[in-house]
Parts: sequence; C-alpha cells; structure tokens
Amino acid sequence: MKQLFSSLVIAWFALGQSGVAARAEDQSMPAASTVPGAQTPSIHPDRSITFAIKAPDADSLQVAGGDGLGAGPFPMVKGADGTWSVTIPAGVPGFHYYWFVLNGVSVNDPGSETFFGYGKETSGIEVPEAGADFYSIKNVPHGEVRAKWYWSKTTGAWRRAFVYTPPDYDEHHNTRYPVLILQHGSGEDETGWTRQGRAQFILDNLIAAGRARPMIVVMDRGYAQKAGAPAASVGSSAWLQNLHLAFSAFEEVVIHDLIPTIDASYRTIPDREHRAMAGLSMGGMQTLFIALQHFDLFAYIGSFSGPIIPSLDTGNLTAERNLRERFDTKTAYGGAFADPAAFNKRVRLLWLGVGSAESDQFRSSIGGAVEALRGAGVRLEYFESKGTAHEWQTWRRDLYDFAPRLFQ
Amino acid sequence: MKQLFSSLVIAWFALGQSGVAARAEDQSMPAASTVPGAQTPSIHPDRSITFAIKAPDADSLQVAGGDGLGAGPFPMVKGADGTWSVTIPAGVPGFHYYWFVLNGVSVNDPGSETFFGYGKETSGIEVPEAGADFYSIKNVPHGEVRAKWYWSKTTGAWRRAFVYTPPDYDEHHNTRYPVLILQHGSGEDETGWTRQGRAQFILDNLIAAGRARPMIVVMDRGYAQKAGAPAASVGSSAWLQNLHLAFSAFEEVVIHDLIPTIDASYRTIPDREHRAMAGLSMGGMQTLFIALQHFDLFAYIGSFSGPIIPSLDTGNLTAERNLRERFDTKTAYGGAFADPAAFNKRVRLLWLGVGSAESDQFRSSIGGAVEALRGAGVRLEYFESKGTAHEWQTWRRDLYDFAPRLFQ
Repeated sequence: MKQLFSSLVIAWFALGQSGVAARAEDQSMPAASTVPGAQTPSIHPDRSITFAIKAPDADSLQVAGGDGLGAGPFPMVKGADGTWSVTIPAGVPGFHYYWFVLNGVSVNDPGSETFFGYGKETSGIEVPEAGADFYSIKNVPHGEVRAKWYWSKTTGAWRRAFVYTPPDYDEHHNTRYPVLILQHGSGEDETGWTRQGRAQFILDNLIAAGRARPMIVVMDRGYAQKAGAPAASVGSSAWLQNLHLAFSAFEEVVIHDLIPTIDASYRTIPDREHRAMAGLSMGGMQTLFIALQHFDLFAYIGSFSGPIIPSLDTGNLTAERNLRERFDTKTAYGGAFADPAAFNKRVRLLWLGVGSAESDQFRSSIGGAVEALRGAGVRLEYFESKGTAHEWQTWRRDLYDFAPRLFQ
Repeated sequence: MKQLFSSLVIAWFALGQSGVAARAEDQSMPAASTVPGAQTPSIHPDRSITFAIKAPDADSLQVAGGDGLGAGPFPMVKGADGTWSVTIPAGVPGFHYYWFVLNGVSVNDPGSETFFGYGKETSGIEVPEAGADFYSIKNVPHGEVRAKWYWSKTTGAWRRAFVYTPPDYDEHHNTRYPVLILQHGSGEDETGWTRQGRAQFILDNLIAAGRARPMIVVMDRGYAQKAGAPAASVGSSAWLQNLHLAFSAFEEVVIHDLIPTIDASYRTIPDREHRAMAGLSMGGMQTLFIALQHFDLFAYIGSFSGPIIPSLDTGNLTAERNLRERFDTKTAYGGAFADPAAFNKRVRLLWLGVGSAESDQFRSSIGGAVEALRGAGVRLEYFESKGTAHEWQTWRRDLYDFAPRLFQ
C-alpha cells in the first residue's frame, strides 16, 4: 500500500524538483509568477532576478526575454550539482516574457507559470514595482471573469471571449452597464488582459475608489478568418502583411457576432455612448481600424502602443504600401479625421498612448500622429508611460488612465 | 516604416516557426491542443502521433508522457535540417500530458498548449475518440465558467475558484440551483476540470439532453495551509505524507470559506440535499475525507480514481500508517460506514470509479473497498472506465456517469 501512495503522489513530489534548493542566506523571494513549490525565478530586494534550472547534460544555457527584461541574452553558469543559474540586473518593474535557451532551443522555465505570447505558451516573470498596487488584488469588492463561448457566423466556428462583470453584477438585477471591448497584442490571445494585464484587478480597484464607472469588459480573441477561407491564412506571415484582410474578418466578428452576443447575454446599455473599444499593439491597430469605421457603434476609442496606419485603403490594403505613406489627417483611416469639428462632436474620447522606453519607431509613429491630429484640431488624450517599453506594465498603466475617462 | 511593421509582427511570425513544415503527403492534422500555426503535434487517422521540434544543437531528444501516451520514452530522430521527430503508436484516446527530454531536461513542446499538471505547466495532447462527443463543444446552450476570487480566513489569503453556471443562469432570476464541488488531482490546480476535463461541455451536453439537472459546479484549488503555517509546507514531500494535516486545511477552506462564499454569491439551494462533492485522485481522497465527516453538508459523494484510505485517525494520521492497515468498514473514515442502514438513509449517492487500465494498486484499493462496502450493505455506485488509465479520459467519463445521478 505504501507503493500505491508513492505512485499517487509522484506528480506532486515533482513540485519540489522543479526549482533549486532554497538559498537561505539571501533575501530573495520566488516571484508571484513562480509556480508553487519552485524556488526560482526569485527576485532580490534590489529587483535583480535569479533564474536556475537543473540540466547536468546541457552544453549551453541562457536566459532571454522580451522588452523590459534587460539587454540579454544572459549566459547561465553551471554549478557542481548540474544546476545552471544566473542573477540578472534589476529589470523594469512589471511583467516580462522570458525563456531559457538550452543548446540553442528556446524552452520554458519549469519553475514559472506560462502565458500565451509569441504565438505559444511562454514563461513570464512578475517584477514588483515599489508603491504600485493599482493592479494588485486588494480587499475591495471583486468582479468576475467569465469564459463565454459563442458561435460566430463570420468564421463558422465557436469562439471564446472573457467577460469581466463588475462587483455585484448578479445582485443588481435591474442595472445595465456600459461595455469596453479590450484587445490583446500580436502573438497573444484572449487570456492576456486578465493574466498578464490584471485588468480585472485594475477595474475592481478603480471602481472601489469611485474613479471608474462600473462596466463590463469584453476580451475577445483577436484572430479570425472568414468561414471557408484557406486554413493556412491565419498565423502565416502573409496574414499580417495584408492588414485589411487580417483585420476585416475580426471586424466582422466584432460587429456581427461579438457585440450582438454580449448585448443579448449581459445587461448592457447597447448604444454607442456606452460602448468603448481599446487594445494594445495589434489590438490598438484593430481598435482604430474598426472603431474609426463604426462611429455608430463606438464613442470611446483607445490605442495602447498601437502603431498608426498612415492611410486606410479599404480596397486592397497591404502593410508595406501604407506604411510607406506619410500620415495625412485628411485621408488617414478612410477620412475619419477629415472634419475635425465633426469628429470632436461625434467621438467622446480618442486616447493614444506609448511607453517612453519603446523603440523610436513606435514613439515616432504614435507621437507623429498625435502631433498631426492635434495640429489639425482633433481632440485627443495622449499618455506616456515613463520608463516602460512595449510591455504589459505600459498597458496596465494605460488602462488605469483610460478606464476612468469612459462613460462619464 | 517597414522596419516598424517588422518589429511589431516579429512575435506573430514566430508562430510559423514553432512547428515544422507541413507534411502535405500525409493525412495527419494538428491536434486540438496544438497552438494555432504549429504543425505538430499532429494526429494521424490511425491515432498515431507525430512530435517534432527544431533543435540542431541538441545531443538527444525524447518524447515522454503520462498515463495513456504509451510505453515511452520514445527517442526522436534528427533530420538533415536539425528537426527532431518521432511518430509514436496509437495512444489511448483522450487527453495526455507529455514533454520533451532535451539533453536530459524535461521541457515543454513549443507547439502545444500547456496545462497545469505535475506541479508545473506541462504540454498536453488531445487524442480524439471515435464516436465520443460527450465532451465536445456542440450547438447547445452553453453555461459560463467564472473566475471567482474570494478571501479565505482559513489561509489568510485570496483564493480563486472557477464556477460553472448553467445556461441561462442570468435570465432565470428566480431559479436556485444545486451545487457540485468538483476537485482536481495532485499536481494539478483549479484550471484542470475546465481545461483538461472539459467539465463545462460535459454539463452543457447533459443538461441540453435533459439528462442532468442544471447545476452550479465549483472547482477550487485543492491546496491550502492555515494562516501562519510554515510557508514551505505546501508543496513539500512532507505535505502529503501527513494526509490529515494536508487535507484538513482544505477541509476548513471548503466548510468555512468556500461554501459560504458560493451560497452568498450564487443562487444556490443551500442545503445538503442539493450539495455534492466529487474529485479525481487526490481530489477523490479529499472528497471522502471531507464529505464523510460532514453528512450535514453533503448528500452526494463521488471519488474518481481516488485511493481509499483504510482508516481515518483524525488525531495524528500519517499516510504510511494508514495505508498499511486493511480497509475495515467498521472503522474506516472515522466510522462513517459503521452503520450501513443509517448511511444508506443519510447519503443519497456514494459513487466510486476507476479506469480498467489503471495500475493494480489503484484498482485493488478502490475495488477492494467497493467489495467490502457492498458486503457490509453500504449502497454505492461503481463505474469502471474501459481501457483508460489514471488519466483525464477516465475522469471525463466518470463525470458523465456521475452528474446525471445528482439531485434527482
């Protein structure tokens, strides 16, 4: 019978083998994103980070990661027991994707939770920011995050969206709420805003403080292809080279499938004055693509680190062609800004943001559009996240600034 | 500007690099659990499975996995382009954990979704079962799966449970529902039943067919330690060696935190006749541990592949001590079965199940208890899943048999 028990708990015991031995002599702590039982990745008081993995038979190991982790890749050093480790300098606070490179292959850290990014499950580390608790779970009323499956006529397939309902939604039978559609970036999916982004806690905290109006937040999967389209098109390099084709299938999902589903399933206020759309990076591009064509549906529009498309030729757009062109407020986005006075009257909020540490290309694309639009008399809010790059800490701050401006 | 665009979509393009080139000459298809854009893992018409990963600098690569994948590990073979691959024989249908062993290190397959198992994020493959669609998403009304955060006084920490609400829960303002608490296994977490298990689709399908009563299903995290307990205890090998200590903190969470939260947050019927508990493996052990001590709270009890603890000494239980002892219906579980007539009157359903391909230890533990209990006159349902081992296909079938028997 002892054997039975051993067999049962073998999986559980594996927990203790994922990490390396605790280092009692230092003051580091496993990151919030470290799986229970693992000791690494761990974060030191100075925000430097220790990564480790037992790999006696590896020939080379490095840590590499996305924006904000630092100027890696960082070579790991093999210890006497076959555990490779490295402590990297303090990174930018916030969430960062990372991975190990083991004999040249990018692999996940078994000590970390994974997050969908780069088109696959990827390790991620949460680095605390001193004094920043706007995205922490706190002792305030909490909303729910609901997985909602719905049929899309556009794609001919079931889809899953996540829906944040504000605290006490179920108790307030007669209350109706405004809706924010909030989209992830390229290579991410509908899980991004509640896992990497902590959107639910940002909203809980804002609502508890009376700073944001209770609202429903819908986070859908930003990929779609029309029923009958070649299966290879989504995910191929051709897909995003034809932005119009790539985004227009998702546009149809949003207009014809998602919004009707949400309005039928939740107690929404189903009009443009109570509907917003925003997104990060690719999701920001999609927001501008969709919302600027549908003023009848959206009065609030936000693009977080979303590059600005100089012009939108709805006939036969290709990325290369459009990105070669200069941003012209008269023609951009099908002429949505051509009459600034009419735009200002119609749109309650246009919000654009970028991180101060993003690459020149992002900053010049977004900053240039802000300048041109303001010069033309278009009213907009512009927000710069200090010291953060093309990464989730930028987008968490964006949401924290954006959400209080909605539906007021 | 072209450079900006390239920078933006770099992550997206990585999608196409996760898998290997499509093999047009065969009839294999990427598994349902393969990430979009990846070509492998792929499943052939005969249910054999091809795994592949590009690793020009690896010295050795294998595929290994959990119950049901076959008698691995399976060596992979390096191709001229540095891609290693192997096609393994037809496995058992259903969901199987697996991983690559790269130079001796267990790593995830970048082509696969990950699932929390073995105490970490682990690749998994969904192998279709011919004719079995009871866990497929179908054109029937769908419930929601809600992430519910709640404060636990027992642990002094926030916890997350997932709550399935049946179709049209929001529309039927005046309807109250019975509750099933449904727990994952060792090394898994609260995501297991809706990701690996597809419990929401099983319930949707049963309810649509009129075979199960609409119910709320609560899936909590089966780990807990009392506030102030040493942080190292959960996840250490000591934890499950003291079952009473390990399970009693979770018991307190269920009794004092979870059930009151659920009854306060959802339209439940808050009495024992409308409350069930079930779980798989460790979750089955926890169910028996908790429910058999609280007949005042539970009238329906299910253990899916949960080893039977021969006796329950609530004073100072250790696993070894108990598993050495024979199962005695008079003393087992604190005497819960000592008076079979009283038990049969009080408990509406005791349900025990095991897979026919599980190890002798599981089958003899559970089968022996079934025989002893029936011999003593205890009324129970026993279900054997044909051809499946200690794996999710067993537990999906268990739920499909168990749920229709509840609250009738």
